[in-house]
Amino acid sequence: MRIECIAIGTELLTTRRIDTNSVWLGERLASLGLGFHRKTAVGDIRRDLAELCREALTRSDLIITTGGLGPTFDDFTKEIFAEILGADLVEDTRCRADMVAFYAARNRVPPQVNFKQALIPAGAEPLRNPVGTAPGVWWQDPPGHRGVRIAMLPGVPREMKRMWEEGVEPRLLPLAGRGVHTLRMVVAGVPESNLDERTREVRERHGHLDWTILANLTQVELLARGPDPAELEAARADFEPVLGADLVSVGDGNLEDAVLEALKLRGETLAVAESMSGGLLASRLTAIPGASEAFLGGATVYTVRAKAALLGLDPAWLETVGTVSAACAAALADAVRRRLGATWALGICGNAGPGAEGGAPVGTVFLALAGPTGTEVRSPTLVGDRAEVQLRSTALALDLLRRAMASAR
Amino acid sequence: MRIECIAIGTELLTTRRIDTNSVWLGERLASLGLGFHRKTAVGDIRRDLAELCREALTRSDLIITTGGLGPTFDDFTKEIFAEILGADLVEDTRCRADMVAFYAARNRVPPQVNFKQALIPAGAEPLRNPVGTAPGVWWQDPPGHRGVRIAMLPGVPREMKRMWEEGVEPRLLPLAGRGVHTLRMVVAGVPESNLDERTREVRERHGHLDWTILANLTQVELLARGPDPAELEAARADFEPVLGADLVSVGDGNLEDAVLEALKLRGETLAVAESMSGGLLASRLTAIPGASEAFLGGATVYTVRAKAALLGLDPAWLETVGTVSAACAAALADAVRRRLGATWALGICGNAGPGAEGGAPVGTVFLALAGPTGTEVRSPTLVGDRAEVQLRSTALALDLLRRAMASAR
Repeated sequence: MRIECIAIGTELLTTRRIDTNSVWLGERLASLGLGFHRKTAVGDIRRDLAELCREALTRSDLIITTGGLGPTFDDFTKEIFAEILGADLVEDTRCRADMVAFYAARNRVPPQVNFKQALIPAGAEPLRNPVGTAPGVWWQDPPGHRGVRIAMLPGVPREMKRMWEEGVEPRLLPLAGRGVHTLRMVVAGVPESNLDERTREVRERHGHLDWTILANLTQVELLARGPDPAELEAARADFEPVLGADLVSVGDGNLEDAVLEALKLRGETLAVAESMSGGLLASRLTAIPGASEAFLGGATVYTVRAKAALLGLDPAWLETVGTVSAACAAALADAVRRRLGATWALGICGNAGPGAEGGAPVGTVFLALAGPTGTEVRSPTLVGDRAEVQLRSTALALDLLRRAMASAR
Repeated sequence: MRIECIAIGTELLTTRRIDTNSVWLGERLASLGLGFHRKTAVGDIRRDLAELCREALTRSDLIITTGGLGPTFDDFTKEIFAEILGADLVEDTRCRADMVAFYAARNRVPPQVNFKQALIPAGAEPLRNPVGTAPGVWWQDPPGHRGVRIAMLPGVPREMKRMWEEGVEPRLLPLAGRGVHTLRMVVAGVPESNLDERTREVRERHGHLDWTILANLTQVELLARGPDPAELEAARADFEPVLGADLVSVGDGNLEDAVLEALKLRGETLAVAESMSGGLLASRLTAIPGASEAFLGGATVYTVRAKAALLGLDPAWLETVGTVSAACAAALADAVRRRLGATWALGICGNAGPGAEGGAPVGTVFLALAGPTGTEVRSPTLVGDRAEVQLRSTALALDLLRRAMASAR
């Protein structure tokens, strides 16, 4: 079964907007033992989209499109397919009623232009959109293309996902192969190349699994894919001794999930005081549901005034030691730990750029961990632009706490 | 001139790895007045890649590939094109010498398998790789395809970029069109469909510009592209009265840039107190270089304990009014404004989900703005998952402040 994905939107070609829908769809297909043979991004240009749709009909058994279902002048996915396949667009009364109800729930009436969204190609079925106004389309065996299936989904990720889960996946179940299973191991504090070398022997021992190493700014992921869960489990068991304390977790979570999980298990709490990272660490933690069970909160003390007002640090003393210093980081962690009565506290200061600050070159970072047995400070030098230095500093801080908890076990 | 991009690598179809090379290439093309009509990701599968290359030769004037130039068994971009076009692969002595020199500089000799990389299709030119071992290929007027150009580049971004700059861009200069200019207008507080309707007339008046409306969770962008800066300037002038106070900014910046810019112009300062958004608002502001000139800092008061310890709120009083309430949001803003001595302060509380909290359904949000003339609270109900509710709440808070500053002008 050949499946292709078509992401529609000029912004995907001309701006930094990236098609992330197809990544999510690829994972869902893998869980059904299916996968894309290609994915294409194309603009809101009639000629280009029509050319691509025509080709896709000749080479693929399932065509999944995202985007171009909205109410505006440059939304015409349904029109193009209807035109190519010689079908009329017909208003679907249920879609129209859904749309009116959607607006009514918000005390509004649909703008006239929106009714275009209730048009569905004759012979196709609408896919309901429970979280938006644009219905999708499921078109099986369109004229002249027996055996072909077309799923037209919205470009808005939240709408696309719900429609896939409720409308498309159930229709694909009869076609699903043996599901592909994934073993995902998250590692922190180790460069990708080191991980590649250290794990080569074990990967070769499990050579008929499909291996990938994916590094980003906060962690490295080792992925293995294969049809047999027992084989993946055996690979995991072989990996654990090789990775040791560098292994953050196995499964879906990331570094921040692992830290919150460990805190909850120990019945301990965390507070943070962030200068350079400006709230990013708190934000990464509070992105996780239930974070408040272990994360108490923190202070974003981006200025001396804030360090004084929220944490009681003495401006004159800060002037002496410098706001980019080990002493400052330690004072941040100690103060926020004391104020919030937390078991642990992390303090971050440094210079993320773009310019040098108080003599500290860009990339200078001080990370402090205050805990039951004292306060320790690390001072890595980070490479990258402002966003990278901020993000990596939060990852290193979390990893510092993770390792401290693991060794204090 | 029709240009397409082909990104080669199975990891682009089966993992979360995303093709960012084509985003970079798209920007470089735009600076030459050129652009992609489509971009495709395909796996390291001979049949799939050959099918795609064959098609591309029939529809595009310039084909840019990334990936598949390495030494391993699944690198075969050059072979595929050579096969399709009926050309032999011939070892290029200079490429071989470059490779030997590259390894010699690292006190090594090239592995035998690497010499495959020095093979170039007969009739094509090698593109030197100053930062890696795989040369690229420039193939102009390949057999049977007069007027077609193929650029085969490595998949490693650093190598791809250098090769583009040194080998490909100079060859494209004679074909470059008039650079394309972009007018970007950022709008907040307005749904995309409203903007579409309100701006239709002006867009039609400037109909030979290329229009795109790009909505995300925090703002809507109106983009116009065209060759003539004067025409874009005329469009901007026509838009301003239509958009009125909804227009956040013109140019590169986003909502948070506009807010910081306005604060700096007025010599005013901002502090934030975040419960539900957990540091995200602070993090968005401090992502911008120079934020500390106007953003003093804030408190991430995710728990009652933090609200008491960092902002001096009375836990018993919080218990009475509830931590998801207008009174709580106002108290957060007032307290952090007073503590930090800021001109303005934003307070955010609510329930981002997943579960109901203290009787407040998911999506309930209270946003408070405290300023020189008092404190106001808004209570929008937001739709979406946890991350979306958190992000949208920070955008609405920023927009509340932006509008207050504009009307207090």
